[in-house]
Amino acid sequence: MPSKSHSISKRRVAFQGEIGAYSEQAAFAFFGPEIELVPQPTFRALFRSVADSHADSAVVPIENSLAGSVHENYDLLLQYRLPIVGEIILRIVHHLLVLPGVKKEEVRRVLSHPQALEQCRAYLEKWEGVIVEPAYDTAASAKRLMAEDLRDAAAIASQQAAAEYGLEIIESGIESNHENHTRFLILEREEKPPAENAKTSIVFSFRDMAGALFKCLAVFALRDINLLKIESRPLHGQPFRYYFYLDFEGSLADEAARNAIQNLREITTFLEVLGSYPAGRFV
Amino acid sequence: MPSKSHSISKRRVAFQGEIGAYSEQAAFAFFGPEIELVPQPTFRALFRSVADSHADSAVVPIENSLAGSVHENYDLLLQYRLPIVGEIILRIVHHLLVLPGVKKEEVRRVLSHPQALEQCRAYLEKWEGVIVEPAYDTAASAKRLMAEDLRDAAAIASQQAAAEYGLEIIESGIESNHENHTRFLILEREEKPPAENAKTSIVFSFRDMAGALFKCLAVFALRDINLLKIESRPLHGQPFRYYFYLDFEGSLADEAARNAIQNLREITTFLEVLGSYPAGRFV
Repeated sequence: MPSKSHSISKRRVAFQGEIGAYSEQAAFAFFGPEIELVPQPTFRALFRSVADSHADSAVVPIENSLAGSVHENYDLLLQYRLPIVGEIILRIVHHLLVLPGVKKEEVRRVLSHPQALEQCRAYLEKWEGVIVEPAYDTAASAKRLMAEDLRDAAAIASQQAAAEYGLEIIESGIESNHENHTRFLILEREEKPPAENAKTSIVFSFRDMAGALFKCLAVFALRDINLLKIESRPLHGQPFRYYFYLDFEGSLADEAARNAIQNLREITTFLEVLGSYPAGRFV
Repeated sequence: MPSKSHSISKRRVAFQGEIGAYSEQAAFAFFGPEIELVPQPTFRALFRSVADSHADSAVVPIENSLAGSVHENYDLLLQYRLPIVGEIILRIVHHLLVLPGVKKEEVRRVLSHPQALEQCRAYLEKWEGVIVEPAYDTAASAKRLMAEDLRDAAAIASQQAAAEYGLEIIESGIESNHENHTRFLILEREEKPPAENAKTSIVFSFRDMAGALFKCLAVFALRDINLLKIESRPLHGQPFRYYFYLDFEGSLADEAARNAIQNLREITTFLEVLGSYPAGRFV
């Protein structure tokens, strides 16, 4: 039987940033080399690319072990409701990149994504007089150095970005703490049946903060379901009320998890399951 | 008896940003007009100014009802351990500012603080082709328009900033949602005895996420102490472990709250009280 055209065409994987971005590394680490990359300028465009079927999968950074959660992406998870089907955790090593021949003494400003600047804060604070300029992407700041021939600037980006844009690495591992990992979620249009070593992500809200959060966590504690992460985001229009994003061990294929969710519906005014998926490995 | 010199000198109140910043409004709303303003370029400098006695009080934005928490300031609360002595909640109205005579059609780029840009995201997304440029402060972006005579740019900032830098307001109330309030904390070097209508802020961490967060919240639920907010921040060096910041009703002058804290020490590996203070009013 002849293969259908879509079965032989490559998976289109969208990520935010330019070629050389850490998200691109995460895409290859999760899917392997046989993919077609679909770079997107913003996180919103990244979500939209999968929602609109311009890509099959999105690789979305959700949390870094130094800078914390990528809050915008929590908001977008709720807005787009694309199911989470996977996860991967990438070790991040930041490098200081310059045009060939430029010396550190000549550098007056450092360009990078705000999260990368944040992860290198201690390094940058020791560097007297240097100006920090936020860019929309690590790789984009590397590309800009090359494109605009900026000899007074450096970029903080990956080794791949240095290679891609013909830049020199003059310092390596400049992140404040080497336990620097970014957790990426893989989003698609269709849920995938939960697998081994599963975790589940949900989002919920309730009317009164008072004792409600305790009751919500009790739903899991009573069933010996381990919580992995909790994150809160503002509920627009209702000052200082929140959406809570919760990750827990197990999948909705487990009876205990299904019962917990059922129980949680009694307590919450809003509840959405974002996905059950295999817990990511560290790469 | 003659007053000592320091009792007649004005209170020095530090805030992040330039004259015309929302933080400046919060300072006046909390302390009244008889203060000496001490502008600081960064949040870190703001904390340092009080720690080093260059200012008596710091006015620190900690949470916005649309954009969420100011995570950097959570981290700095832990690093500097300056006690929280007060709180105030300021209604934020964003305006689009331009040089006198400039029309909206001439504007190619919009400058403001990333949080302000985030709060006006819906407005900016509808504005086709406009380039968004993050600045370190709302008022600073207004000042820059004036200083550099930028006729192709607009700033998002306050009415005060428009007046201060001689700019025209061409659109008002451009925030995505008018329930836009920023909560500011007041930090000083000395704790103040807890007052009426008190709330308390703490930060803690524990070894295993599993059931520990539930136990920590139980400490409060068992004593009918209402929780107001929970926020997590990464624990550096230990990927995907967290510090939890918790606000609850009551002060450490209350026996129930003291017992809860005592109980919490048994469960946590780290616990710090950030302050008991009167809950802020909305202004």
